[in-house]
Amino acid sequence: MLLRMSTLFLRTLREDPADAEVPSHKLLVRGVFVRRAAPGVYSWLPLGKIVLENVAAVVREEMNAIDAQEVLLPALLPKEYFEASGRWDEYGDTLFRLKDRKGADYLLGPTHEELFTLLVKGEYTSYKDFPVALYQIQEKFRDEARPRAGVLRGREFHMKDSYSFDIDDEGLQTSYDKHRAAYQRIFDRLGLEYVIVSATAGAMGGSKSEEFLAVAPTGEDTFVRSTESEYAANVEAVEVPAPQALPIEGLPEAKVHHTPDTATIRTLVDFLNGAGLGRDFSEADTLKNVLVKTRAPGTDEWELLAIGVPGDREVDFERLEAALEPTEVSILDEADFAANPFLVLGYIGPKALLDNKVRYLVDPRVVNGTRWVTGADKADHHVVDLVVGRDFTPDGTIDVAEVRDGDPSPDGRGTLYTARGIEIGHVFQLGRKYTDAFEVDALGPDGKPKRITMGSYGIGVSRVVASVVEQSHDDKGIVWPREIAPADVHVVGTGKGRQIEEALRIARELEAQGLRVLVDDRKGVSPGVKFTDSELLGIPTTVIVGRGLDAGLVELRDRAEGGREEVALDTVVDRTVAACRPRH
Amino acid sequence: MLLRMSTLFLRTLREDPADAEVPSHKLLVRGVFVRRAAPGVYSWLPLGKIVLENVAAVVREEMNAIDAQEVLLPALLPKEYFEASGRWDEYGDTLFRLKDRKGADYLLGPTHEELFTLLVKGEYTSYKDFPVALYQIQEKFRDEARPRAGVLRGREFHMKDSYSFDIDDEGLQTSYDKHRAAYQRIFDRLGLEYVIVSATAGAMGGSKSEEFLAVAPTGEDTFVRSTESEYAANVEAVEVPAPQALPIEGLPEAKVHHTPDTATIRTLVDFLNGAGLGRDFSEADTLKNVLVKTRAPGTDEWELLAIGVPGDREVDFERLEAALEPTEVSILDEADFAANPFLVLGYIGPKALLDNKVRYLVDPRVVNGTRWVTGADKADHHVVDLVVGRDFTPDGTIDVAEVRDGDPSPDGRGTLYTARGIEIGHVFQLGRKYTDAFEVDALGPDGKPKRITMGSYGIGVSRVVASVVEQSHDDKGIVWPREIAPADVHVVGTGKGRQIEEALRIARELEAQGLRVLVDDRKGVSPGVKFTDSELLGIPTTVIVGRGLDAGLVELRDRAEGGREEVALDTVVDRTVAACRPRH
Repeated sequence: MLLRMSTLFLRTLREDPADAEVPSHKLLVRGVFVRRAAPGVYSWLPLGKIVLENVAAVVREEMNAIDAQEVLLPALLPKEYFEASGRWDEYGDTLFRLKDRKGADYLLGPTHEELFTLLVKGEYTSYKDFPVALYQIQEKFRDEARPRAGVLRGREFHMKDSYSFDIDDEGLQTSYDKHRAAYQRIFDRLGLEYVIVSATAGAMGGSKSEEFLAVAPTGEDTFVRSTESEYAANVEAVEVPAPQALPIEGLPEAKVHHTPDTATIRTLVDFLNGAGLGRDFSEADTLKNVLVKTRAPGTDEWELLAIGVPGDREVDFERLEAALEPTEVSILDEADFAANPFLVLGYIGPKALLDNKVRYLVDPRVVNGTRWVTGADKADHHVVDLVVGRDFTPDGTIDVAEVRDGDPSPDGRGTLYTARGIEIGHVFQLGRKYTDAFEVDALGPDGKPKRITMGSYGIGVSRVVASVVEQSHDDKGIVWPREIAPADVHVVGTGKGRQIEEALRIARELEAQGLRVLVDDRKGVSPGVKFTDSELLGIPTTVIVGRGLDAGLVELRDRAEGGREEVALDTVVDRTVAACRPRH
Repeated sequence: MLLRMSTLFLRTLREDPADAEVPSHKLLVRGVFVRRAAPGVYSWLPLGKIVLENVAAVVREEMNAIDAQEVLLPALLPKEYFEASGRWDEYGDTLFRLKDRKGADYLLGPTHEELFTLLVKGEYTSYKDFPVALYQIQEKFRDEARPRAGVLRGREFHMKDSYSFDIDDEGLQTSYDKHRAAYQRIFDRLGLEYVIVSATAGAMGGSKSEEFLAVAPTGEDTFVRSTESEYAANVEAVEVPAPQALPIEGLPEAKVHHTPDTATIRTLVDFLNGAGLGRDFSEADTLKNVLVKTRAPGTDEWELLAIGVPGDREVDFERLEAALEPTEVSILDEADFAANPFLVLGYIGPKALLDNKVRYLVDPRVVNGTRWVTGADKADHHVVDLVVGRDFTPDGTIDVAEVRDGDPSPDGRGTLYTARGIEIGHVFQLGRKYTDAFEVDALGPDGKPKRITMGSYGIGVSRVVASVVEQSHDDKGIVWPREIAPADVHVVGTGKGRQIEEALRIARELEAQGLRVLVDDRKGVSPGVKFTDSELLGIPTTVIVGRGLDAGLVELRDRAEGGREEVALDTVVDRTVAACRPRH
């Protein structure tokens, strides 16, 4: 491959585009890798197309290596399949919907579970046919509410999606492990720094699911990681370890106090510490009871739910939603309080909740034998030394309090801190959701039908391109990792003599050696502009054919390390080939 | 590449699918190359995906060879661009339209003229930037009224579309010629028998456009070709050569005859031949006047148009529509005749038409000095020896009479005959339609803006796959040309001994030699089934490892030529490599 900048469809920009906030968006636009066609919809220009294909090639190699078979499904899908799976409704506004000329409903595929399930159902019938894994690299469509950051979150984007089909859970686990390992190899080869986080808490009974997050401050996903171990998890999936229960004997009796004007935790603690109770109180000694209402799918009725958390923590609404899913959750309005006069705002306690049959769940830290200051269900009154397991027994625990930097890591090693990442991959043990919907069975060895179990696995190919740039750039431009760089070497001819001619000659020799070459053979463009472009485009190795040429010297530059070296003209091809194939 | 049939996602079908009528549809489904997902919407399964990529690779190589640059544009396009070009309305029901969550209008790209035009407008500003040619290989969407024949006419399909941008007409001609030549190389490499036909008649003043048609009786496009020259054209584009005008002097005078009950040409000719007029009459001696009405774009008024053609020919309505485009044309209804009482059905003649200011155009054969029998504008009366240029002068000519087998070829060599073809490519000098719509100028050397001129060029990549099968199959299955076959060689192990083991060993050796290998290593499948599958799948070379193995012999088969040869086991790898690389 030899690309000549004199004819390449590439006009770099000096200025950041007005709508760009994150580095990858700025640099991919300035370097003409992508251009915006509509909100969240991008065109890939020549160098961008090459990078996209390079990423796809790595993905393809590793998918083939685990015996996944490549296919290509359409984007235009009939509604009926998505109705059968329930996703026609579940997906809401994020699904692009359309009608054909006969009025039939279609959608643009956001992922392809339904179609792959039907495909396997149509071809395979016996347990001997399994396992099978199929994949495609294809455009996906999602009408995101907030497309952002260029190709980082687009509405039309490139994805590798694969699906495994197994006869039993053990097979699914094997397929899952193979995909997970392949994803590690892919992201390692792409030079990405990433973490693998549990996407859903195992405690909630969900199927196993993990996300691959490229670590980047511009990422949309928050996750926590441990200071001392490999532990990493989505905030929604953090499981707070429950402390040991404490002995109840010997604890003082619960006592109601008149605590005027203490409707907030802060005023309550101040009051208690000034009340001469013989000990110091902190917010963590109080039990805050938060009321929400929930509605199970398919029902019209809202039900009250009370959540007891230590007073120094808020309920994290995202953790709450994840914990209750698919049940809906909402905060109370005035009408709800009016309808339940036993709820005394600011002074809600376990007694009134339990007496009035309100479902009452507490934080895992609220174990038997702990004692709390909490509401006494009467304005301006609190109860002190209310002991769990003696004075009240909650209906269960719920792990939805906010997670904070410094909390102990659930694996017992180190403490947690918050970081941000970009979701670049997702592996998911789907189980039988789709094979149940489409009744996909295989005849078992005993002659009886056996329901197939599935995994689904995705990599955002276009998002990976942006993620690499987020992690690999400096103030001058992109620093492409070799594996996916748009070219191996950038030969830049600068000067008014025979430099451009010589640059082209070197470029052709490098091409003959099997390198992919970009050559700056533009006439009438200043050296400064050429160097600036070269740094912006971020090809790993640069050969400058400039003023030193008359002395038989050219310069070799390394984009990542910044090193510069003058080398003799007659050694430049060998030296460049060596620099571009460090591992061969 | 080594694909093992024991694990390949492939279950061939013995029976033709119920909805399939043409060979490519039947065979591509039976051989599991494609599967239907919705009407006109197909999935490409493992072997089909490989063939599709092989075709794309040939297209890509030849596009790169003419310095076209590859990009990738989105499918989801905003309405505004298509409104600016007028195609939002022009495309009618064939355009898939949709709204996003904010209610904004989008469409799925049927082709990408608008986006490429805007892309070039956004990047290029000077005459020095041009010419440039860009291309993509991408999914296209068209809501065809009658999707048919599997991937031959789909609603979502794969297309290579390219666009050239030039500063002047001469540049456009050069870009067009380069594309045309590249298309010839592509279709030659794909082993297709094709013709290049003029798509629109130059006489009508349209821009130059040619279609590449793969010759196939199942094709939807009718074209004519010459028995003795390379001439080929769409029926709409055939230009009938006008004969020389004849001398008028000495011709007998026109005379009106009472011709009772002769409202049809047949009854008229019979009457004349029985009327003792001293000569024989044929249908070709009569002049039939056909009335239609036309409506120019943007107007509400219908206008009458009369067309005079020799009585032995009908007006070809498709040729008429093509000749008048974009003016609408329709047949007359009773109200039209009632409103124009001078039109005497069955006896309409030039006199009443011209006297009543009806626009009157005649076939190119109706030249000055020819004499005709035609209507006398009075029931049961015709006029004989009415001479063009003496007795009436039409308003002009129009070339819309039916074209018939045996008509002289317009190039003067041989006669025409009708054939059918599949449109696999289209090259089109677009001119300035889109650059005018989007005001795309480049600054010329004189400092003045110059309007850019465009060409657009398309190849139906998925349709090409079906076209190859239409031309290259027999009653047993597909016969893939080497260049795009899903594998170079199919190694088939049959027998209960060590044949499968040996087949796998040979397959691995062939793979090590750089061949792409499909190996039938299925156990418990009969030789008959394996041979049937092998012929259906159509890999060019087959190695049978069967009963002869104990005697150290395997069989080499050529799918296209049907040849079979026993070769010694220790030579099979060399022999197979030689067979698979006949030109290397």
